[in-house]
Amino acid sequence: MTYDLWYWPTIQGRGEFVRLPLEAAGIAYRDCARELGAKAMVADMASRTARAPFAPPYLVLGGLVIAQVANILMFLGERHDLAPSAMADRLWLAQVQLTIADMVAEVHAVHHPVSVGAYYEDQRDAAAQAAAQFREARMPKFFGHFEAAIATGPGDWLVDHRWTYADTSLFQLVEGLRYMFPQRMATLEPDYPGLIRVRDQVAALPGVRAYLSSDRRLGFNTDGIFRHYPELDAA
Amino acid sequence: MTYDLWYWPTIQGRGEFVRLPLEAAGIAYRDCARELGAKAMVADMASRTARAPFAPPYLVLGGLVIAQVANILMFLGERHDLAPSAMADRLWLAQVQLTIADMVAEVHAVHHPVSVGAYYEDQRDAAAQAAAQFREARMPKFFGHFEAAIATGPGDWLVDHRWTYADTSLFQLVEGLRYMFPQRMATLEPDYPGLIRVRDQVAALPGVRAYLSSDRRLGFNTDGIFRHYPELDAA
Repeated sequence: MTYDLWYWPTIQGRGEFVRLPLEAAGIAYRDCARELGAKAMVADMASRTARAPFAPPYLVLGGLVIAQVANILMFLGERHDLAPSAMADRLWLAQVQLTIADMVAEVHAVHHPVSVGAYYEDQRDAAAQAAAQFREARMPKFFGHFEAAIATGPGDWLVDHRWTYADTSLFQLVEGLRYMFPQRMATLEPDYPGLIRVRDQVAALPGVRAYLSSDRRLGFNTDGIFRHYPELDAA
Repeated sequence: MTYDLWYWPTIQGRGEFVRLPLEAAGIAYRDCARELGAKAMVADMASRTARAPFAPPYLVLGGLVIAQVANILMFLGERHDLAPSAMADRLWLAQVQLTIADMVAEVHAVHHPVSVGAYYEDQRDAAAQAAAQFREARMPKFFGHFEAAIATGPGDWLVDHRWTYADTSLFQLVEGLRYMFPQRMATLEPDYPGLIRVRDQVAALPGVRAYLSSDRRLGFNTDGIFRHYPELDAA
């Protein structure tokens, strides 16, 4: 049983939030568009009529096609025991993941405030304003939420006594923001020791460590969701 | 067993996506901030330490606190039989709801492209550009996705042979966009007959009909997510 994962082949993007728990848990998957190219993904999407994904990433297993990161993770969590089993815990885990997804959407809106269909270079002034607001107000607000969630949690990890998909997602969030806003992160990180500890613990998971040092892990770049434009960063 | 729903008391906002299935199914709930005021909600949120919501809406039942619209709806769907029971169907339903949530987030970004913390009046130029892109590219893209989902579905409704929470959410999406972009919707609606049919069917549900004519249904206004600024609309 090997999953087919479809996502843009040259960026981490939203696909990375799916790749990480697959790698951490050692679940077999094929990163299809990296093997077959973006055109093959576009063709695969176009070939799906009923229950088609709106956008990548999506996961295929036989006749089952699952899209939307939070939905994919919920499925993987339940099927591969990467999530607690009590209902209240599962709901809380999904809730944190959806809040991470909200922050990721705001990250993208920083460099594309006016139009997702236009280039960053054509919306730089608005992006500079959006970045200032994001750095100063939104980052502390989201980080404070995650830090409190970890501090009031059951132990070393966010929701459970072991890692779940919300921990791998927090890792990716911190990694992405370190790339995008190195100055701002240097200022903020000391205030959020729990968040950084979870990031470090995820990085030390054997599956994740092997993945990060492999060529399966793409680098960050200015085509993805987290983009480093030096003019948008400040301490 | 009565739910406590907490949401801003003067706007439909994201809370409306929770109110609608509660009303449609005749599930007892207290719209707490409408009874007690926004200050009471802020105080309630501040009093929650462990597993606190990031933002309203949130639903409270005894010790259980659930936030994030898609998460709340998934919970209500399973608990009150407002969702199909087969796993593949539940995943598809959640996926559609998350895509609706993505569109709702883009709707808000139209009038607040640069900063969620600043007034619309201070970002009007960027909003005009964002609105043009949203009207011309994003509305047809999302609507086409929902229309195809309905057309390839099992019958009159989106996912099941009866209404689910994705149908009430599509109703709200159409209602909100009709208020926000009356000219654009008049142009687009004929191309999406399935979407409009689902909207009409939801409006005709006895629980929804009673709700819409009650004073529990707030009107749309320019404090909510869907805002009518005539200068942002065009055919």
